[in-house]
Amino acid sequence: MAGNSFGEVFRITTFGESHGDGVGVVIDGCPPRISLSTEDFVPDMARRRPGTDSFGTPRREEDKVEILSGVFEGLTTGAPITLFIRNQDADSKPYEVLRAVFRPGHGDYTYFKKYGHFDFRGGGRYSSRETAARVAAGVVAGKILEPIGVKIVAYTLELGGIRAGSINLDFVEKNPLYCPDPAATKRMEEAMSRARKEGDSLGGIAEVRATGCPAGFGEPVFDKLDADLAKAVMSIGTVKGVEIGAGFEAARFKGSENNDLITTDGFQTNQAGGILGGISNGDEIILRAAMKPIPSISREQDTVDRQGRSARVKFIGRFDVAALPRIIPVLEAMVKIVLADHYLRLKTMR
Amino acid sequence: MAGNSFGEVFRITTFGESHGDGVGVVIDGCPPRISLSTEDFVPDMARRRPGTDSFGTPRREEDKVEILSGVFEGLTTGAPITLFIRNQDADSKPYEVLRAVFRPGHGDYTYFKKYGHFDFRGGGRYSSRETAARVAAGVVAGKILEPIGVKIVAYTLELGGIRAGSINLDFVEKNPLYCPDPAATKRMEEAMSRARKEGDSLGGIAEVRATGCPAGFGEPVFDKLDADLAKAVMSIGTVKGVEIGAGFEAARFKGSENNDLITTDGFQTNQAGGILGGISNGDEIILRAAMKPIPSISREQDTVDRQGRSARVKFIGRFDVAALPRIIPVLEAMVKIVLADHYLRLKTMR
Amino acid sequence: MAGNSFGEVFRITTFGESHGDGVGVVIDGCPPRISLSTEDFVPDMARRRPGTDSFGTPRREEDKVEILSGVFEGLTTGAPITLFIRNQDADSKPYEVLRAVFRPGHGDYTYFKKYGHFDFRGGGRYSSRETAARVAAGVVAGKILEPIGVKIVAYTLELGGIRAGSINLDFVEKNPLYCPDPAATKRMEEAMSRARKEGDSLGGIAEVRATGCPAGFGEPVFDKLDADLAKAVMSIGTVKGVEIGAGFEAARFKGSENNDLITTDGFQTNQAGGILGGISNGDEIILRAAMKPIPSISREQDTVDRQGRSARVKFIGRFDVAALPRIIPVLEAMVKIVLADHYLRLKTMR
Amino acid sequence: MAGNSFGEVFRITTFGESHGDGVGVVIDGCPPRISLSTEDFVPDMARRRPGTDSFGTPRREEDKVEILSGVFEGLTTGAPITLFIRNQDADSKPYEVLRAVFRPGHGDYTYFKKYGHFDFRGGGRYSSRETAARVAAGVVAGKILEPIGVKIVAYTLELGGIRAGSINLDFVEKNPLYCPDPAATKRMEEAMSRARKEGDSLGGIAEVRATGCPAGFGEPVFDKLDADLAKAVMSIGTVKGVEIGAGFEAARFKGSENNDLITTDGFQTNQAGGILGGISNGDEIILRAAMKPIPSISREQDTVDRQGRSARVKFIGRFDVAALPRIIPVLEAMVKIVLADHYLRLKTMR
Repeated sequence: MAGNSFGEVFRITTFGESHGDGVGVVIDGCPPRISLSTEDFVPDMARRRPGTDSFGTPRREEDKVEILSGVFEGLTTGAPITLFIRNQDADSKPYEVLRAVFRPGHGDYTYFKKYGHFDFRGGGRYSSRETAARVAAGVVAGKILEPIGVKIVAYTLELGGIRAGSINLDFVEKNPLYCPDPAATKRMEEAMSRARKEGDSLGGIAEVRATGCPAGFGEPVFDKLDADLAKAVMSIGTVKGVEIGAGFEAARFKGSENNDLITTDGFQTNQAGGILGGISNGDEIILRAAMKPIPSISREQDTVDRQGRSARVKFIGRFDVAALPRIIPVLEAMVKIVLADHYLRLKTMR
Repeated sequence: MAGNSFGEVFRITTFGESHGDGVGVVIDGCPPRISLSTEDFVPDMARRRPGTDSFGTPRREEDKVEILSGVFEGLTTGAPITLFIRNQDADSKPYEVLRAVFRPGHGDYTYFKKYGHFDFRGGGRYSSRETAARVAAGVVAGKILEPIGVKIVAYTLELGGIRAGSINLDFVEKNPLYCPDPAATKRMEEAMSRARKEGDSLGGIAEVRATGCPAGFGEPVFDKLDADLAKAVMSIGTVKGVEIGAGFEAARFKGSENNDLITTDGFQTNQAGGILGGISNGDEIILRAAMKPIPSISREQDTVDRQGRSARVKFIGRFDVAALPRIIPVLEAMVKIVLADHYLRLKTMR
Repeated sequence: MAGNSFGEVFRITTFGESHGDGVGVVIDGCPPRISLSTEDFVPDMARRRPGTDSFGTPRREEDKVEILSGVFEGLTTGAPITLFIRNQDADSKPYEVLRAVFRPGHGDYTYFKKYGHFDFRGGGRYSSRETAARVAAGVVAGKILEPIGVKIVAYTLELGGIRAGSINLDFVEKNPLYCPDPAATKRMEEAMSRARKEGDSLGGIAEVRATGCPAGFGEPVFDKLDADLAKAVMSIGTVKGVEIGAGFEAARFKGSENNDLITTDGFQTNQAGGILGGISNGDEIILRAAMKPIPSISREQDTVDRQGRSARVKFIGRFDVAALPRIIPVLEAMVKIVLADHYLRLKTMR
Repeated sequence: MAGNSFGEVFRITTFGESHGDGVGVVIDGCPPRISLSTEDFVPDMARRRPGTDSFGTPRREEDKVEILSGVFEGLTTGAPITLFIRNQDADSKPYEVLRAVFRPGHGDYTYFKKYGHFDFRGGGRYSSRETAARVAAGVVAGKILEPIGVKIVAYTLELGGIRAGSINLDFVEKNPLYCPDPAATKRMEEAMSRARKEGDSLGGIAEVRATGCPAGFGEPVFDKLDADLAKAVMSIGTVKGVEIGAGFEAARFKGSENNDLITTDGFQTNQAGGILGGISNGDEIILRAAMKPIPSISREQDTVDRQGRSARVKFIGRFDVAALPRIIPVLEAMVKIVLADHYLRLKTMR
């Protein structure tokens, strides 16, 4: 039983491979009469798109979203919405080596073990290209959240060990790293350049904030809001950790320090990250995701081949230095999808 | 659309409240002809049970698991297995105060906002008592994993800021804190006593290891093994963070440091925590969960009442100093449930 | 992947066997603050209960519904509602023969082939006793439908080849066969007595009508209202056919005869049975279910044993002459469950 | 919560409208390494395609299936398979009238009531064009069933009140009506011509047989094989009734007549239609579906407009005289999809 669908009411099913015809998503459960056009996708797709800054892969993709179904005269109809993004600038030649050997840190090994064969061109299904479909679906989710005033922003909190010292949300969209701290941004850029020169890659931490989310989202005891957010974020390639509110730091607090006291003006603090008992409490939702350095590096590495024999692999493809910053809109999209789903789920309880 | 079911093939649906008749679980999808008796549940239920050490709540529960359905002549039949654990020593009086005010850090506020009323006796549905049903279900999941050699162990890695310096798995079951380091155990016990005396509570970090898991578990791109583990663990009350393998530390590594090179003897390192591309790679699966200090403390705190007016609450119930160590078998159970589910899911692909 | 759950938003999971501890159901997704008490179940449970008329099995069951979870101070809480009906008057001795041979027309053969062993006492999981849980769940579904004015009634349209010639709904609850036609009732009773004397059994056809259902229920293209009703009804043991509105007769009409013309007063006719394009049209929903004669007869029949050898089986248990009339409240329950589910599903689209 | 997905393990999600870009399906859960190419779809798509006989709509569609994802070097990969069928010969002009009025017998009225607006061009989502995606998915399901020897055949049992008197399966594919009886075929053709001349339409009954299906398919108590088949078939537009084995006739039999006695050579009869207790018994699976006459007729009919005012509608589009014979491959496809799904589900129980 495969796992390419996510969400219960606002339910997305993604498909497609890096070097196939394209990637896409079918959205079932989107309410009718929401305005939707191909233009709506342009900004977020541009933010995720490869080739838009000097740190990313040189692959060039227009990433135009086609609406194949579910929209009539500019409005959603309640029927499944199909979004499709064609692959254009895919060069499969460098990947022929994967017919023989597995790249360390990639899905090559596990896909082969699981499926017996796999589309290795550009990483096929486990390529980060798959996230283009998530971003497209996130745009539709955003359309559902907009009227109730929910706003989501993600940014680079840490990159290559360099942490933003201040959070200036206005600065986030003004730099290619989506970093909220101008000083840190400069140092992050230097670290990126250095890593690129060394043929290496960097990890990082992103933070996501959702404001305007009413109390009541989340369905205990398994589909708690934090549980669904954790799954949504951990399902993104390269993410190895996720935390809500104080997160791992909370483990070091005492109850008297960690409890958010309640006042007539709302919560005095927000250690909880906006979620109590698995249900949104009306405060800002805050989560952080840790991304490992992307495994594609241009150094020769030890590995084995499909027959289990020792081998060396040096991969000359096109890839990013870090999952950040391109993963920023993907994180936003996944959070939007979870919130839109829980908004619609809540309606069945009222 | 409520969220009290978890798993796709091995699917559990839990029910019950802290001070109602009891808590339980229906397991649908368990293969037939697996031996199962009430005795099988005794060890894990004892490990989770309140009142078994000096740090826990003084509530005494026998936690005997009744098998209400699905077993015939000692073997599962393929029909739903219903497990029920009666509540016995429930004292609801201290909770009457919750008819008026919300305890900071608890689900009181959000349950009221979401449902309009709620069973506040002992925390009702959001009580940690709910996890007894998870532990029971985990025992059945363990029966599925046993024949293929999967073994799961969890332990207290950190408590009240004190971290285990060494991992001696043999020591884990020999101390009430499930800590793998004798020296750290002593300091943790002191911290627990101190917190109890201060009417305060402590957070901590647990680590879970699964060995013997074959390559191939996990269903990209959403039901990746790490994504499902993250959800399973985050759905446990008090958990605020989860990480796989190197986790948040991976964010500070370079690709050349983080990639696990592959040799003819397997992976040279295990930064990945046994999961690549969302699929188990045959190596040990490692995850960590961060628990906040439990919100129940015996100090007076600021809050509001149901009418939104300022109030103070000082709660005299019975509760633990920390979610650890009692949460250890719960973590193990959730990991077992995820692995059993993915083991059965994999069969449909072969 | 087992199939003991039904419904998407109002989701029931049933469990239990005929001669085990009891049968029950967990209902997840029931909105909060609906009044619910054990008394609510008495009328429908009584209608389904064995031993209430001279045609049924002499088994005596009190069929008291216990509410194990999900209700607090008389109101549903939004948490899973667990209903449990204990088995009391179960006599397993006559079933020992099933350790060796399969009864024709029963699930004995297929359960053994599928699961390798099975709880044969009283039919175990495939006993009609399982439907007690459906009736209990139907009571809760009815509580959701009541405020919007949906009313469901089922009756015996045909029994042993004798068809009701007139539909007098007031008479339905006044006779033990739930037949709407006094004259036909008398002849049906005679047929029942005759069959009982001959050690044989009878089939029949029931009709279900739902009035007050607003337009808009049903989710194309697979969860159409008629598709979900067909599944719900066909999932009841002994049902071999289901039809909506004109049903099989529609196959003989021309379009000009079958189309329900629309007027300012609504539909002129109701060949459609209240469903168009898989969505309720506001008119009365009408369906019919065909029940085979129950396979338990007291004549000796040819069969084989577990080793595949020729055998004869003459079964002396306790059983009904026909699935009707006891199946009437079960049909009503399944229709209620489908309608309640679609009512809640519709909320997510608005 | 919308309903455009079907199946649990072999899970299809269809999308698309009659006059939009096209119709398609994403199949999740198809095992890897099954050979699949665009040529595989040609025969079944041709059988369903409009414009292939003198009785069908004159719409001409090539119905070429594009594989957008999930296949690599001629083999399925385990990733979602996306099949897309472009619309080519779509003429939306005749449908402009639906902006104002509802056609009797169609989904116009209910779609408008449910969604507030709808894509009325060619019936949009409720057009029978949607079934092209089902047929395409059925081809993939067939690839899963082929190696285990399951064969499915459907045919026209009755059309316009004329019933096949004999079942000659060899004749089925030799006549455009897929009728197994040469004599009846001729009379059916005459009835079709007559109806066409009268601007009217005809209903009919189709029968589906699946041979080679092993015992064990079906998941009680809700996902019984007959229950899932009933839903699958009833979800096809124009189907108003479905029956298994003896079906409605079984209601008139006595138990002693209806029970299929078991011998060392298998079942003596097949009143059960191959399903006992909701599980396949190894015998031939037989079901029948009743189709209403398609509602599109070229006569003027009474109706109302969107404002609820009296109106008349005479529709000049392009449409078939009967759902039969074009629905034959759709029925086969839905049965294949159910059987493939249950075949894969059974694997999780073993």
